[in-house]
Amino acid sequence: MSVVMGPNRYSKVEVRVVKVLRDGDHRDLRDLTVTVSLEGDFEDSYTEGDNRAVLPTDTMMRAVYALAKDDPLHSIEEFGQRLVEHFLRANPAAGVARVRLIQHPWGRISDHPYAFIGTGGGLRTATVTGTGEGAQVSAGIDDLLVLKATGSGFAGFLKDDYTLLEETDDRILATIVTADWSYNTATIDYTKTWEGVRRTLLEAFAERYSHSVQHSLWLMGRAVLEAFDGIERIHFALPNKHHLLVDLRPYGRQNEQEIFHAPDRPYGLIEGTVQRSG
Amino acid sequence: MSVVMGPNRYSKVEVRVVKVLRDGDHRDLRDLTVTVSLEGDFEDSYTEGDNRAVLPTDTMMRAVYALAKDDPLHSIEEFGQRLVEHFLRANPAAGVARVRLIQHPWGRISDHPYAFIGTGGGLRTATVTGTGEGAQVSAGIDDLLVLKATGSGFAGFLKDDYTLLEETDDRILATIVTADWSYNTATIDYTKTWEGVRRTLLEAFAERYSHSVQHSLWLMGRAVLEAFDGIERIHFALPNKHHLLVDLRPYGRQNEQEIFHAPDRPYGLIEGTVQRSG
Amino acid sequence: MSVVMGPNRYSKVEVRVVKVLRDGDHRDLRDLTVTVSLEGDFEDSYTEGDNRAVLPTDTMMRAVYALAKDDPLHSIEEFGQRLVEHFLRANPAAGVARVRLIQHPWGRISDHPYAFIGTGGGLRTATVTGTGEGAQVSAGIDDLLVLKATGSGFAGFLKDDYTLLEETDDRILATIVTADWSYNTATIDYTKTWEGVRRTLLEAFAERYSHSVQHSLWLMGRAVLEAFDGIERIHFALPNKHHLLVDLRPYGRQNEQEIFHAPDRPYGLIEGTVQRSG
Amino acid sequence: MSVVMGPNRYSKVEVRVVKVLRDGDHRDLRDLTVTVSLEGDFEDSYTEGDNRAVLPTDTMMRAVYALAKDDPLHSIEEFGQRLVEHFLRANPAAGVARVRLIQHPWGRISDHPYAFIGTGGGLRTATVTGTGEGAQVSAGIDDLLVLKATGSGFAGFLKDDYTLLEETDDRILATIVTADWSYNTATIDYTKTWEGVRRTLLEAFAERYSHSVQHSLWLMGRAVLEAFDGIERIHFALPNKHHLLVDLRPYGRQNEQEIFHAPDRPYGLIEGTVQRSG
Repeated sequence: MSVVMGPNRYSKVEVRVVKVLRDGDHRDLRDLTVTVSLEGDFEDSYTEGDNRAVLPTDTMMRAVYALAKDDPLHSIEEFGQRLVEHFLRANPAAGVARVRLIQHPWGRISDHPYAFIGTGGGLRTATVTGTGEGAQVSAGIDDLLVLKATGSGFAGFLKDDYTLLEETDDRILATIVTADWSYNTATIDYTKTWEGVRRTLLEAFAERYSHSVQHSLWLMGRAVLEAFDGIERIHFALPNKHHLLVDLRPYGRQNEQEIFHAPDRPYGLIEGTVQRSG
Repeated sequence: MSVVMGPNRYSKVEVRVVKVLRDGDHRDLRDLTVTVSLEGDFEDSYTEGDNRAVLPTDTMMRAVYALAKDDPLHSIEEFGQRLVEHFLRANPAAGVARVRLIQHPWGRISDHPYAFIGTGGGLRTATVTGTGEGAQVSAGIDDLLVLKATGSGFAGFLKDDYTLLEETDDRILATIVTADWSYNTATIDYTKTWEGVRRTLLEAFAERYSHSVQHSLWLMGRAVLEAFDGIERIHFALPNKHHLLVDLRPYGRQNEQEIFHAPDRPYGLIEGTVQRSG
Repeated sequence: MSVVMGPNRYSKVEVRVVKVLRDGDHRDLRDLTVTVSLEGDFEDSYTEGDNRAVLPTDTMMRAVYALAKDDPLHSIEEFGQRLVEHFLRANPAAGVARVRLIQHPWGRISDHPYAFIGTGGGLRTATVTGTGEGAQVSAGIDDLLVLKATGSGFAGFLKDDYTLLEETDDRILATIVTADWSYNTATIDYTKTWEGVRRTLLEAFAERYSHSVQHSLWLMGRAVLEAFDGIERIHFALPNKHHLLVDLRPYGRQNEQEIFHAPDRPYGLIEGTVQRSG
Repeated sequence: MSVVMGPNRYSKVEVRVVKVLRDGDHRDLRDLTVTVSLEGDFEDSYTEGDNRAVLPTDTMMRAVYALAKDDPLHSIEEFGQRLVEHFLRANPAAGVARVRLIQHPWGRISDHPYAFIGTGGGLRTATVTGTGEGAQVSAGIDDLLVLKATGSGFAGFLKDDYTLLEETDDRILATIVTADWSYNTATIDYTKTWEGVRRTLLEAFAERYSHSVQHSLWLMGRAVLEAFDGIERIHFALPNKHHLLVDLRPYGRQNEQEIFHAPDRPYGLIEGTVQRSG
């Protein structure tokens, strides 16, 4: 029996690149955080300290900046594909290149041609994973904070000796949506679709009575798959940001779903994929 | 010579209280983080371990929840005043009570009656400091991220042996505005004024050519004082979120204010007060 | 074609539990962060809003506290096994229970019987994953910050048009070790082994000249597998915390591996598994 | 009435500089985070956009690196004084220069000549504030996490309608010490004194029964002033990291100061100065 290298990869993590797009006196912005990962035949760099197959991560960073200059940056999905192709070409030992991109949201200040305000409402993300045989593209949204002040409950659940939670049909439901979805087609308007998915998620979250975070996950996922044929599956990670009713009775006040404490930890976390079948 | 207690205070920090306001089927939200500090005659609690004058911080937290129930929460400035009055009354040894409030911003999802999305664009803050003789109210904004893609430069500065920075009349200017201002009147619509100050800040940031973060600070501060008679002074803390031009010449590309690296640290920090005189 | 639920799980994340162990006037501490995840037949909770199979995460939290009382807490690996068994029993729909534990390190202040100081030098972690057929135990270390001020280089690497990095045989090598390893035996002293692995990692990091972070990963992993028969494989995630030589020549100074800038981002990340073969 | 600039300053914040000190094959480390602030006659840079008096913060950063090369770095207090002198000289408009330094702690791995491990147990800090007339030096400690598992209570406190907290003479007391002290002499061994203050703080925290965080603050402060004649006053900020007894009675268990929940927020915060008198 001997000791060997198993699966491995190396990455440059969180290259912060901002591109200013010019159109006369008008400016647009792409504010990105890019991570590049390579897998392949790098075993000797570990076991022998032989770096001949290793493109430095410093070089990976510089190529991200240079290619950001060349690319029109229409969408992070397309820029990600360009990067994946580049890194597979630049690094013969790499069998798989994976690029993860985050786009930070900015809106214009009063339609100003070049002044912007950082907006909330979710980050746009994309992941492109490529091999010699082609690339897979997924898109996503991250850090999308939503809350329902009513229209949500949690009841009829399993109970055991440790269960003190009371059933309710009126509570605060709050979560920070992280979602990502994969495309089954390459002929798609990534930006228009991303905006449509975001809108669909928000509406599905808002509209229906929710029996649980799980139930909201399903309602959002099903709505997206029904609205967008080009999406094959969608995965969610939804923290249950608890809002606990404060007991005001000791000081002579009723609390009818009015005053809540919002603890940081622990929190629930519901993860699941909604997908097509058949 | 002996050893004695000098200045001191004690606080309950970051009580997270969410209030749901009901109006038929319609709901509104107040999502607050509240800190309460007391100063006064508490020396014996330190030197003797005698707690007779000390209202526990646990009690301070509970009072915040109870008074959030009683108060209409029209504005954090008014709620802060109520809290200050309460804590001065509840704690005879306290000569000064100071309440700091942060309001987390939420917007409606498509005008929905009770579904909300967390928005960016700055937190609303207030600080109320009271004694037996009355209270002072200041309001503020925090975490307001803004950027100009052009219309800003930095030139004509002092140089010494360590100066390598090049002068420029076209760069990215980005900052995260923290501002707070004090009122010279109690007859003011706090919410309407806050929204007006925020709008004025953004417009002043956007409109004029900026020679430096210092210059932008002045332009914003002066615009606020000129527009709002009830504001006595305004203080800013403006990090200079540097965007450094990436040198692409080694790989045969020009970079004409297009591709920037956004480092986390170090950063500049410009702090100053704009005030009335005479 | 229809839309269905795919893989899913739900969790209570980061229950912060501190246990004081008494022995006469002497006290010991276990300061833990515990996350419990359940996978199984929970589809109806998503698609129908039917919660009959769902044990609330609030209940999961309470059971963690109650079982922390019952358990002697000899090791987080053993406590994790007890929790897994409990949650599989408590929740018939759960096919898999996974418990992740982090132990925060404390040392005594001058051998005091009950006063402690928070120490650095790495968190102890464990993950227990169980089904009806048994449980798998892995242990780990997290947040272990190490640095070599010399005895490390990076040379002989692949170069392309974007490569500016210079080869060196003397640099700072710094990383924050995250490692986890799986046991091939249940008859093991978890605490003694954890301490041995930590010591072995540190010595392997320190002793040999390192040609890269990859090389250090291999040296550490091989040393652990050679020293501990009961360990089947060990996985590492090693950020390359770059220390960049500052160019002081413009101000007339040489910088012979003396003055370094430590940027936050981007950073390299080397991930890999060292395992037994044959 | 007109609008004018009031008090202002500008800074370079968090320059991360690491210096390797060589002694044959042996290496030592100084891992610093340095912030430099300047106050003075900078009004025109705000109101006129006239930068002639402004030394760029980029230059301030470069000077920190260059002077780190020149300085032996015996102590951050001495290095801070050198920086203050430099910046007052380099910037004629600056009336006050203030340098804040944080030293990150590293220990050797098994007495190795050049391999280090990041240790906890508190950061060393210093602040030097200088004018044309001289400089004031203060030193400090930050992020020093301590806990007593018993030997602490909180009783005899003020009660009102909102008070539910029960009195106790046995609880967990935990805090993260931030302290800073000023010297009344320049002839002092800064490093030896810092180590002595740290040891004195820890012993005072551990030894005596504590009636409150306030009481512990006093015990620590008094012990330092009694032990070190050269220290004029010491200021503390001590968060009360609450450990709340979990109620296990609903599941049939007593909890005799054994199982605690450690919430993140809200927390108490006790701030105070202990000083000499007469």
